[in-house]
Amino acid sequence: MAKPTPLSGFPEWLPDGRIVEQHVLDTLRHTFELHGFAGIETRAVEPLDQLLRKGETSKEVYLLSRLQEENSQIPDKQLGLHFDLTVPFARYVLENAGKLAFPLRRYQIQKVWRGERPQEGRFREFIQADIDIVGAGELPYHFEVEAPLVMAEALGALSEIGLPPVRILVNNRRVAEGFYRGIGLDDVEGVLRQIDKLDKIGPDRVSELLVTECGATEDQAKACLALASISGSDVGVIAEVRALAESHGAVTELLETGLAELGALIAAASERAPGVVVADLKIARGLDYYTGSVYETVLVGHEQLGSVCSGGRYDTLASDGKNTYPGVGLSIGVSRLVSRLLSAELVEATRSVPSAVLVAVTSEEERAASDAVATALRARDIPVEVAPSAARFGKQIKYADRRGIPFVWFPGSVGDDGAVADQVKDIRSGDQVDADAATWEPPAEDRWPRVIPKG
Amino acid sequence: MAKPTPLSGFPEWLPDGRIVEQHVLDTLRHTFELHGFAGIETRAVEPLDQLLRKGETSKEVYLLSRLQEENSQIPDKQLGLHFDLTVPFARYVLENAGKLAFPLRRYQIQKVWRGERPQEGRFREFIQADIDIVGAGELPYHFEVEAPLVMAEALGALSEIGLPPVRILVNNRRVAEGFYRGIGLDDVEGVLRQIDKLDKIGPDRVSELLVTECGATEDQAKACLALASISGSDVGVIAEVRALAESHGAVTELLETGLAELGALIAAASERAPGVVVADLKIARGLDYYTGSVYETVLVGHEQLGSVCSGGRYDTLASDGKNTYPGVGLSIGVSRLVSRLLSAELVEATRSVPSAVLVAVTSEEERAASDAVATALRARDIPVEVAPSAARFGKQIKYADRRGIPFVWFPGSVGDDGAVADQVKDIRSGDQVDADAATWEPPAEDRWPRVIPKG
Repeated sequence: MAKPTPLSGFPEWLPDGRIVEQHVLDTLRHTFELHGFAGIETRAVEPLDQLLRKGETSKEVYLLSRLQEENSQIPDKQLGLHFDLTVPFARYVLENAGKLAFPLRRYQIQKVWRGERPQEGRFREFIQADIDIVGAGELPYHFEVEAPLVMAEALGALSEIGLPPVRILVNNRRVAEGFYRGIGLDDVEGVLRQIDKLDKIGPDRVSELLVTECGATEDQAKACLALASISGSDVGVIAEVRALAESHGAVTELLETGLAELGALIAAASERAPGVVVADLKIARGLDYYTGSVYETVLVGHEQLGSVCSGGRYDTLASDGKNTYPGVGLSIGVSRLVSRLLSAELVEATRSVPSAVLVAVTSEEERAASDAVATALRARDIPVEVAPSAARFGKQIKYADRRGIPFVWFPGSVGDDGAVADQVKDIRSGDQVDADAATWEPPAEDRWPRVIPKG
Repeated sequence: MAKPTPLSGFPEWLPDGRIVEQHVLDTLRHTFELHGFAGIETRAVEPLDQLLRKGETSKEVYLLSRLQEENSQIPDKQLGLHFDLTVPFARYVLENAGKLAFPLRRYQIQKVWRGERPQEGRFREFIQADIDIVGAGELPYHFEVEAPLVMAEALGALSEIGLPPVRILVNNRRVAEGFYRGIGLDDVEGVLRQIDKLDKIGPDRVSELLVTECGATEDQAKACLALASISGSDVGVIAEVRALAESHGAVTELLETGLAELGALIAAASERAPGVVVADLKIARGLDYYTGSVYETVLVGHEQLGSVCSGGRYDTLASDGKNTYPGVGLSIGVSRLVSRLLSAELVEATRSVPSAVLVAVTSEEERAASDAVATALRARDIPVEVAPSAARFGKQIKYADRRGIPFVWFPGSVGDDGAVADQVKDIRSGDQVDADAATWEPPAEDRWPRVIPKG
């Protein structure tokens, strides 16, 4: 066959890129588990009616059919690939509600698929890493404070490898809705949809749309834009919003509830993750099911990449008629993050294979001796491979060098006194010393490949 | 919406089952990396013409279409979900050949999809864990010895959690082909296909098929069955095959090559994984691309589950006309394994959540104090969650108990001397002691959930 070419929108990494991605995934998982989130996986497919429940995203769904389906008497129920992890999780909660303990803290790290036009940072197949906390019937507000702080910690843990700092932008739907209603605009969803376009089309165009699409007066449109322009990382921002609302005679009970919540989040965040969380009153999140806090996250210095971690509070994640399950959660776009880390050359793996040691082979007849050395080293958790052929040692060293394997081990021959003298060479420095496979240790930083900022 | 029901063939686990699955995946990955295999992931989709290259499996492929495709001017190239990890890996090797170092040792752990009728241990979506070693142009035989031994070690590492012992059954295509040609049967593939049915339909029926389908005489059929009946875990099996071939005047050069290879594998295995690897001359592997060693693996005591780890040597994993890439590899059916571990109640997780500690909340006003304890514990890598509400302590303990969280932490109040006296309770024993969040450690076996044999 001819050389295949990549499929646009379906990213794949070379082995050293995968080491970076795996490190990111391991770090996220570790932080989530430290905070008591239990991992689940859901199947990749959902019935189409489930996937289309929210309406808007229908264009993005990949449908499945079986090649031989026409021969089948009973066609399968129409299935599609999930386009996020929230819809499948909601279904999972309902399906297993009787066997789950609520509030349920779960994380989920899986691929999702969207049949969209691929662009920089926007893929057709990508990994999401979600956390959600879901209650049965009720879910206290403090979880809306906790969830973004867990993500701040998870993303913060990646700064070690060169991830730029993140800024989590938060808003509260109750503030927006209370304000809009207070100034006399009742098409709250419509207004949010226009405000959501601010970064893309600018305030003048949004103002026009508020007038033409949402029936706002010029003054109302101006007030909406004034609200959207407020941001800040301390509780002063709350006073600023209240002052604006007062100047429009628009202080409602809903607004006050929202401001109290937003203020509590900002206060907690300024203590537990100083400088990371910023109240930004223009954050709207297009989707219509959020009912309280909403979150977006930008990489500082890479804002044009868009949000790398978004979410919010929804009063009804799922409902089976009898019970309602409110939730709050955020989702990290892992592929977007990793692809930027790699393409902007922010990080690198210290080598492209796990092996810390290549055991050289003196001759094919003596391969068993090299295998025995490898077994002894692995028994002490040192990753090792044995040279593929008994080529001259220079070629074997080159094999290690090409992969970044730092050490080459030379099994000794039995001397006159019956002693076997093995040697190990650090091929970076050229140092070669006697070594015993039963006791030798590589330096801790060389044992496994590490992911580090690219210098 | 109504309570959803599971989709047949798409397994999902509850959180404690996922802990088991994750442990299996982590253990496999760790063993693969100890042996120097680099992890890669490939996209879930491949062009349909790639997927159908081998012909036979066309009925199993899930095709993709976009819901809005009819509106698109340029329809996408027809894509399907991969049904194994070998076809995508072959494509990945060709696509990236210039950037990869050969021989390439790679592992790959991903979901695959097959539109088959679901049965016990046979799913439509399942996880495979593959290792392969691929050369450019050539691949020495010793890798055919190494690959199954890595899998023996990986599966052996799971015996700790209650996986039954495995038996890896090996054969060599050259032995079979050399023997068949030696007795005058040239339709080697045809014969292998019938021999592959032995376990399902028995020797009498296979004998009939060899006569009617492959043009064998009764005597030739009898000889094929005699070969297939030979098995053993020491090199005596080699002599037995040679004796059978001699008695039919069927000793060919190809047979001798195959026997030398098979003998080397058995000899190495009896030293490095005693009792695990068995030569079984009836192992045929239906697929036609294997050219040397072939492998199947059964769980002892669960043989009717079928093979849980299969593979072999192929002289042409991939070829771009200029270069040919021979390979050898095996694939573990992880979902089949995990589903049996769970359904036969062989294993269990020590709890259903990561948290080792639940920090109680005295009152909502004092939640920040509980959050501070949690932060201090997490800083020393102890997984912790904070109680969802300031309910009476009995209810908070019940919250921990339901999830199997072993410790509940009670933040103290500041005493007259300014000292804060925290206490921690082991809710299994009821023991409650003073504790300091800056220094307290849980017992090592309680820090993270463990997976253990079910008693």
